[in-house]
Amino acid sequence: MTTSTTGFDLIAYMKARAQEVDQALDELLPQRGPYMGKIGEAMRYSLFPGGKRFRPVLCLAAAEALGAERRVAMPAACAFEMIHCFSLVHDDLPCMDDDDMRRGKPSCHKAYGEAMALLAGDGLNTWAFHVASQSPASAEANLRVVRELAEATGHPGMIGGQVIDLDGQHGSVDGPQLLAIHRAKTGALIRGAVRCGAILGGADEARLEALTGYGERVGLVFQITDDILDAADDPEPVSFPALFGLEESHRMAREATMEAVALLEPLGGRAEPLSSLALYLLDRKT
Amino acid sequence: MTTSTTGFDLIAYMKARAQEVDQALDELLPQRGPYMGKIGEAMRYSLFPGGKRFRPVLCLAAAEALGAERRVAMPAACAFEMIHCFSLVHDDLPCMDDDDMRRGKPSCHKAYGEAMALLAGDGLNTWAFHVASQSPASAEANLRVVRELAEATGHPGMIGGQVIDLDGQHGSVDGPQLLAIHRAKTGALIRGAVRCGAILGGADEARLEALTGYGERVGLVFQITDDILDAADDPEPVSFPALFGLEESHRMAREATMEAVALLEPLGGRAEPLSSLALYLLDRKT
Repeated sequence: MTTSTTGFDLIAYMKARAQEVDQALDELLPQRGPYMGKIGEAMRYSLFPGGKRFRPVLCLAAAEALGAERRVAMPAACAFEMIHCFSLVHDDLPCMDDDDMRRGKPSCHKAYGEAMALLAGDGLNTWAFHVASQSPASAEANLRVVRELAEATGHPGMIGGQVIDLDGQHGSVDGPQLLAIHRAKTGALIRGAVRCGAILGGADEARLEALTGYGERVGLVFQITDDILDAADDPEPVSFPALFGLEESHRMAREATMEAVALLEPLGGRAEPLSSLALYLLDRKT
Repeated sequence: MTTSTTGFDLIAYMKARAQEVDQALDELLPQRGPYMGKIGEAMRYSLFPGGKRFRPVLCLAAAEALGAERRVAMPAACAFEMIHCFSLVHDDLPCMDDDDMRRGKPSCHKAYGEAMALLAGDGLNTWAFHVASQSPASAEANLRVVRELAEATGHPGMIGGQVIDLDGQHGSVDGPQLLAIHRAKTGALIRGAVRCGAILGGADEARLEALTGYGERVGLVFQITDDILDAADDPEPVSFPALFGLEESHRMAREATMEAVALLEPLGGRAEPLSSLALYLLDRKT
């Protein structure tokens, strides 16, 4: 699955894009920048080393699928990663999931204390909006990206989903509720990253709608496969395999992937990274 | 001091503006809006009832001082208030100041639990940027406001100041450090609110610079008089009266107020609300 029939090497593509994102993040929050000090250190601790930089890669690939230069989408790509990392820092806090480890090292509050982790998360949340405003695209496009980022992150998106999830921990969750939780909690950022890449890439309404549909389906596949992978070591009562069964979960993921790929058809060959990313998510082992 | 020689009634002005701000905030985060649910309730709990809405009033008054309509600055005014309230919610958390009461009622985490208060603060931080992007002014001006808001709020501003303050609690702080803490922790939002009102009001560079100087001085006066008022009931070791003495603190506040008022001179009569606000802060009893 990593090399397609056209010879496209997705793993190399993902690695190259992740490195570009790391470099851009490093420049946006430089180690010895003004105002950085201890808060900057804690913010960087939560950003580096990163994972696959999956949201930014989707954002860049969406802009490329429209024939735009990647650099127009790089600020938005980095902003979505900063929001993702902020959410991890706050999720790990004792009053939330109380996790001591994150990405193979002590979580931010274990390394810096709770107060500093709270503020580092706040700082990443805030600064993402500064970063999101820095595309060389038009002021109108930048402003639209700022709004998209707020909608994907805030109470209509990720943060709202975390709250439904909190509530769900105290009662039973059914299939439609589980879908609603994930559409907001993890889906909104993935959808938003694709949409912002599309907006900065100059998408017309039809293409923006197609790419939005792609982003929604990829977000769903991401969550289903995440739940399936987690179910192997730590079965949770509120997950796709637990609620729908393993076979039906696989079927839902396959169906969403096929729909996502079909939505890319009008974009032609430039959308190959996006379609490969969708297929990769369906088959991923980590 | 509440009625000037020209008959300007500052108390009535502040009350009228605060009511307008309350109404705008109510419309921006409506009780029964989409996505509101429990997170929206906790966000509104932290926004209402408000205090003097001091930052938004400064923002509106700055736009008016340039002859602009207030409504161009209302979104920015509300955004600064949302950031102020977010900072109060997170400051009150057990890992920070651990305060049970805020504005005469249980603090957000006492009313909704820690996890919800964390998320409500996050939600206000995020949504402030959506709100800040909604001025009827140009996309360029809106984008500038988004950046100003991030700079005033984030690690270069308020959040950075909170971190220096955390550090200060573990050691001694001298005069220059105290000034640096307050310039960031409380000064940046006040300065930013004035600047954004000015930008949306169409200020040229000279007027923006004058109003920035006004905002910086008013922020300093706000902090000094806050410390003097606090010193009466609960003397803190790190405060202007403790470090500079009461008399010198008063002198610093008077000097900054006179400078702030002098900077408004080129703006003429339209700046009377701003100059009255500066004098009000110097003399305030609450």
